[in-house]
Amino acid sequence: MTRMAKPIFEAVPNISEGRRSEVVSAIVESITKSGPATVLDVSSDADHNRSVITLAGDAEALFAASMALFAAAIERIDLRQHKGEHPRMGAVDVLPFVPVRGVTMADATVLARRVGEEAARRFEVPIYLYGESAAVESRSLLPDIRKGEFEGFPGKIAKPEWKPDFGPQHVHPSAGVTAIGARPFLIAYNINLGTGDLKIAEKIGKAIRASSGGYRFVQAKGIPLEGRGIVQVSMNLLDFRKTPIFRVFETVRSEAERFGVAIVGSEIVGLIPQDALLAAAEHFLRIEGFSENLVFETRLDTGRED
Amino acid sequence: MTRMAKPIFEAVPNISEGRRSEVVSAIVESITKSGPATVLDVSSDADHNRSVITLAGDAEALFAASMALFAAAIERIDLRQHKGEHPRMGAVDVLPFVPVRGVTMADATVLARRVGEEAARRFEVPIYLYGESAAVESRSLLPDIRKGEFEGFPGKIAKPEWKPDFGPQHVHPSAGVTAIGARPFLIAYNINLGTGDLKIAEKIGKAIRASSGGYRFVQAKGIPLEGRGIVQVSMNLLDFRKTPIFRVFETVRSEAERFGVAIVGSEIVGLIPQDALLAAAEHFLRIEGFSENLVFETRLDTGRED
Repeated sequence: MTRMAKPIFEAVPNISEGRRSEVVSAIVESITKSGPATVLDVSSDADHNRSVITLAGDAEALFAASMALFAAAIERIDLRQHKGEHPRMGAVDVLPFVPVRGVTMADATVLARRVGEEAARRFEVPIYLYGESAAVESRSLLPDIRKGEFEGFPGKIAKPEWKPDFGPQHVHPSAGVTAIGARPFLIAYNINLGTGDLKIAEKIGKAIRASSGGYRFVQAKGIPLEGRGIVQVSMNLLDFRKTPIFRVFETVRSEAERFGVAIVGSEIVGLIPQDALLAAAEHFLRIEGFSENLVFETRLDTGRED
Repeated sequence: MTRMAKPIFEAVPNISEGRRSEVVSAIVESITKSGPATVLDVSSDADHNRSVITLAGDAEALFAASMALFAAAIERIDLRQHKGEHPRMGAVDVLPFVPVRGVTMADATVLARRVGEEAARRFEVPIYLYGESAAVESRSLLPDIRKGEFEGFPGKIAKPEWKPDFGPQHVHPSAGVTAIGARPFLIAYNINLGTGDLKIAEKIGKAIRASSGGYRFVQAKGIPLEGRGIVQVSMNLLDFRKTPIFRVFETVRSEAERFGVAIVGSEIVGLIPQDALLAAAEHFLRIEGFSENLVFETRLDTGRED
């Protein structure tokens, strides 16, 4: 008998409406009514005229939530009337699926494809698969897909290399086109240093970020924390399974020590998957044969497989 | 709005039957049918003639499970026929409630009292409150209550100082008496040392255990791991919130270093509450303002309070 953690994905639809709060509320309400998916957060930005909705649930819950999202957004958002600072190409602009627990990136890719295929069929919106779901390398990055935006897409979509993965080869008149994909969970993690010297934070940021030779899935920079008179290494951890939080922490500690500086604390901005923290506990406590089935709460939250 | 983790208690009834597996199965089945309480484990010992059942759930679930447990055990177990190596005094011998998550020791004490009062009323079994629920100091330790066992209890219960907390002041003819209480979660945690020298493990065990001046809620001893040619500090952590696992680990590491010995690994035997591991991650990563509400999965598993 194997116990399996209850599968959880995150979905983070970005919709092209951040000013009319009644429109955003109506779309969120449609999602809530669609089934058991949980709405964790809704953030609207008036300047960007864009809202980011954070959802969680299993594949069935998020499939139903995605269909409700498309129906509600297409009914209420007309890109021909839309202005905002953030580049956009669709009413539902981008819809990423993120494996959180008990599911793999391959599972998230299957879900992204399934949602893309069905949304294209039901709503006649062209769908591009991006990120880990991209069928071709040239579509893995969102900015490449979004280039030209809604207004430029009628010309772009006609080119053979921009034929959508699903749906018609012409832009939906009011809802544009949508990118759907799978990507890892992003952890926003900052480490505070016991010094006011910004150069030290900048040097450490440079040492650990991918762009200058550091860890493959780390973005980092040094910033001052004005109120506290100290500095911070501010990071995005783009794939915590491949570049784990404890390894980043230990490397920052080692680099800081070289300057005689200590780590005074760290911060998680937003949410962190349980697995990332359990992996840190496992690492520092050197636990042999660790599995989340050793965790009491996990045993309450599982299905059995015989 | 505050988010609260879904409340979880553990209950660990010990029943005086470890040989007739059909009796144990029937009692477990009664518990399962009583409601949403989860049966995590059932361990029977024929020499002790005793079984330990591990349950989890909220207060309502465990109240219902406890009533089902008493009804099924009293129907099937007759202490007048019972022989076994383990001391015992009741068909349901002892029933501890353990706060795991989103609940306090005070909540577990309330639950223990409620179960005790109702079990005494329904089944006419005398109930002693022990552990953190004990009304008087002299009843906090189980061996003190159990002294004399089933056979000696008719004389003991007649004494004013052994009047039960609930129920009649005479022993149930077949089911004896039961101790019910609240206690902290027990973590069985072992640390493996990179040496074959048992004396070092013994010295470290002595340094950290309460009985010889170490941490208040640690029991520890040194044992050899024959197959691996190394030694182990084998421990019970009796209250991980007051003596946390990371502090015990760091102290063992420091003591081992004094002998030039490294920690090569550690083991969790049985289950560990998520809070104990999250506290370790928080400690080693030095996370400021940590709360379990930063954990993605917790946000799916909560009620809202407005």
